[in-house]
Amino acid sequence: MLIEVIAAAKHIPDHDLTGKTAVVFDVLRATSTITTALANGCLGIFPVVSVEEARSLAAEPQKKINNAHPGIMLLAGERGGQKIPFFPHGNSPLEYTPQVVTGNYLVLTTSNGTRAISGAARASDIFIAGMLNAKATALAAAKKGKDIVLICAGTADKFSLEDTLAAGFVIQELLQLKPSLADSATGALRIAQHYAREPIRAFYDSRHGQKLLRLGLEEDIKWCARLNMYDFTSRYKDGKIELYR
Amino acid sequence: MLIEVIAAAKHIPDHDLTGKTAVVFDVLRATSTITTALANGCLGIFPVVSVEEARSLAAEPQKKINNAHPGIMLLAGERGGQKIPFFPHGNSPLEYTPQVVTGNYLVLTTSNGTRAISGAARASDIFIAGMLNAKATALAAAKKGKDIVLICAGTADKFSLEDTLAAGFVIQELLQLKPSLADSATGALRIAQHYAREPIRAFYDSRHGQKLLRLGLEEDIKWCARLNMYDFTSRYKDGKIELYR
Repeated sequence: MLIEVIAAAKHIPDHDLTGKTAVVFDVLRATSTITTALANGCLGIFPVVSVEEARSLAAEPQKKINNAHPGIMLLAGERGGQKIPFFPHGNSPLEYTPQVVTGNYLVLTTSNGTRAISGAARASDIFIAGMLNAKATALAAAKKGKDIVLICAGTADKFSLEDTLAAGFVIQELLQLKPSLADSATGALRIAQHYAREPIRAFYDSRHGQKLLRLGLEEDIKWCARLNMYDFTSRYKDGKIELYR
Repeated sequence: MLIEVIAAAKHIPDHDLTGKTAVVFDVLRATSTITTALANGCLGIFPVVSVEEARSLAAEPQKKINNAHPGIMLLAGERGGQKIPFFPHGNSPLEYTPQVVTGNYLVLTTSNGTRAISGAARASDIFIAGMLNAKATALAAAKKGKDIVLICAGTADKFSLEDTLAAGFVIQELLQLKPSLADSATGALRIAQHYAREPIRAFYDSRHGQKLLRLGLEEDIKWCARLNMYDFTSRYKDGKIELYR
């Protein structure tokens, strides 16, 4: 089993994901928001790349989504860390309380995260992960028994410390399988080991963390930095992300 | 002062190097070989991308190179870690003893290193570094007072642990200047801190290090992993690399 890490969504085309297990990280904040919403009873999340796509999907008759569980389709997203004008919901995991999401769906568009998810389409399975469910995601990925590609959404097409950190924690959990590590995976592992005692320090060291702090979003950072809060992962399939155990 | 790290030569076009100080690392082995040859009395090194270019440059009348120090032009290089057929010299730093290089020049072509050097052309200054002269290179780059881009040649267009490690040691020396670190720089720094007690472990963890071991080149690895052996750096200018203090 080979494990490698892609530093930013932009670099996905350099890698052949065919027949591999992909895991997508956009820890601040898309994949942490997805995980939190599913934990709080959201039935499914539709990640889309553009604002227009989000609007048109949310406007579709609800029964197209799920006859058995009609639910409401909530329109959510951000650009540059801030809410999209006229979108009722943003990209803060703390917005998605049980009161808001139980029995409902989300259509989510974010700067980097949703692009990374759609870019991973050729992989056999696409899991969605963060600090919140690093261990559960590692277990699910390990069970597939295939090579694993950990895809960091990155920030502005570049290496992001918090995504790499979360990838490193997933790799740490996979070490017992004696995998073969690409240098990118060894690097991510060393970064996770460096911050293991206090992972939130990496978030304060990161440029995107510093930006969210300036926007007054420290509670979001604290939430997204929590390690292994949940015992499930989620999976993207046929355009939708659902809870996966 | 902003410091960032580019993970592989392939990604150089994503960055604007104009007006910045660039430092190129191809620790296994091009930039370690360059540093060692200059330490042992080589007068200058001409890095070229292709084998053909190397051959034609080495065939030029010697006086074109330097009238005052005519020297011999030695043809050197590797592809895939091995000597190029009919080339008298390879890419092992241990080949370039004072007996071989004193008063002579090298024309060097390697898989990734020479490509990274030529790709950095837009930068104000281009330093060539490795573990062997991390500290001296940091001092020279700091004196320029500009933003610094640390360019890792990478292995097969991907993140390489040993190049990132050396970049991390350069960053460590620059911390006293209180620079602003891109996430890529913070990541490299954490990797260097992880391996600080025994840097050679990173070389054994790296894919390229493992490949060189299989080729019987452990002595090369041990040499390239030595930290701060030399108190000079080298600089690429007008097609030639020369010792720089």
